[in-house]
Amino acid sequence: MRRVRLHIEFDGTDFYGWQRQTRTGERTVQGVIEDAFARLPGEHGTVIAAGRTDAGVHALSLVAHVDTDSRIPDEKLRLALNAHLPRDVAILALETAAPDFHAQFDCLYRRYVYRMRVVRERPRGMALDRRRVLAVYRNLDVGAMKEACRHIVGRHDFTSFATQETRETVRTVYLCELREEGAELRLHIAGEGFLRNMVRTVVGTLLWVGKGKLAAADVAQVIAARDRTRAGHNVAAHGLYFVEAGYQPWDPQVSESNYRLSLLGEYV
Amino acid sequence: MRRVRLHIEFDGTDFYGWQRQTRTGERTVQGVIEDAFARLPGEHGTVIAAGRTDAGVHALSLVAHVDTDSRIPDEKLRLALNAHLPRDVAILALETAAPDFHAQFDCLYRRYVYRMRVVRERPRGMALDRRRVLAVYRNLDVGAMKEACRHIVGRHDFTSFATQETRETVRTVYLCELREEGAELRLHIAGEGFLRNMVRTVVGTLLWVGKGKLAAADVAQVIAARDRTRAGHNVAAHGLYFVEAGYQPWDPQVSESNYRLSLLGEYV
Repeated sequence: MRRVRLHIEFDGTDFYGWQRQTRTGERTVQGVIEDAFARLPGEHGTVIAAGRTDAGVHALSLVAHVDTDSRIPDEKLRLALNAHLPRDVAILALETAAPDFHAQFDCLYRRYVYRMRVVRERPRGMALDRRRVLAVYRNLDVGAMKEACRHIVGRHDFTSFATQETRETVRTVYLCELREEGAELRLHIAGEGFLRNMVRTVVGTLLWVGKGKLAAADVAQVIAARDRTRAGHNVAAHGLYFVEAGYQPWDPQVSESNYRLSLLGEYV
Repeated sequence: MRRVRLHIEFDGTDFYGWQRQTRTGERTVQGVIEDAFARLPGEHGTVIAAGRTDAGVHALSLVAHVDTDSRIPDEKLRLALNAHLPRDVAILALETAAPDFHAQFDCLYRRYVYRMRVVRERPRGMALDRRRVLAVYRNLDVGAMKEACRHIVGRHDFTSFATQETRETVRTVYLCELREEGAELRLHIAGEGFLRNMVRTVVGTLLWVGKGKLAAADVAQVIAARDRTRAGHNVAAHGLYFVEAGYQPWDPQVSESNYRLSLLGEYV
């Protein structure tokens, strides 16, 4: 038996999120990866990921671990898995990990990117990127949105941004930055962890600021209110990407250099 | 009655190419655009495009014209059409043109881009870009491919690269350049017009050169042979994009600046 670490890319469009749905049988990323393992000889455990993404959310590189008694060497195992996976999931890398490595509990930060494009003045990508980027049909006050981002960073009770009730609603956000990358607006956000729908609700709240419905400074009060009705809506999942699971303490330069090597960051 | 010029973006994945298939009823781009016009009040003619793309080929900005007696102003007409179009086609711009403007006959050059990514050493984008970029699983001799490109430029008989028999097989290619853009290899090709499957067969032949199956200098002989069996295979349609229809004489700087403003060029 050995433990392997997987780096997984997937197109979330046709998935009901990460987590296997035993009762309902919905198609999930965990489900198809465990099915691919099941087609290889030997015994294999449950696949545990750094984060359980929601339906429609994509991943550039989600990290997971699994125990297997397969003796297939790492790179051959990766290729064998990919041969058994549907084309909207790919194992980008696979390596033998320490027996006590835990993709979820050892993960010290998660980084997401949310992609938007203002298509009012310059419509483009509306067809080709319709499942990849949120199209925004109004001009936005990007300066105000950037200012609002500063209130999100830090250790806060994020109840106002959480869909599900949870006991522990305090989280530390290390990075919350809106960037103009090419013709896109991208929210880069990293934290020790996120509440259910929190990233998409942060984006919805920033869009309120961009449209003038909320002042940048008001975001501090939205947080302080601890009231979901005060924050913006939960924007569409198809603009959201899990981009990095960090297993060393947060370091903005390391994370940035990882982003630049990723599919989305390579042109920036 | 007025003539309008359309700038059309589409995701070719689920289309049987541009041209309406009256007999077989296959889903085509021309078909869905004409159907969208039919849902607006008034009479509208046939939609004529600068090029008839094959099944699976995408377009960043294909130009077409159509006659309509609709009195809806240009921008409102564009929005009305988009409201009636499926999400894999978008009218990016629409303007009233001269009554004798002809999208096909007035077009002086067509520019295409073919996207490839070598995923051997650095697998990425295999899931998210599986319908956008050709994944190449072997390392390529990019220098040799670039050298081979030089033989394609100019006025030649391109019989070796044509799938269908046509009377006139001589074409002028203005640009044939393989570029490393981000992590991708992109073939940029522009010419007065292309034979059926010609661009994809040029790419297939360049891939032979990249894999060492053919020397760069041999490409001149492949052209001279006027024999389809001498050229490479017809690579997958999903990497091919129609990027520009030119209505002024070929000018590399103008075309380049248009490319940089396009969806694909914006990061370069």
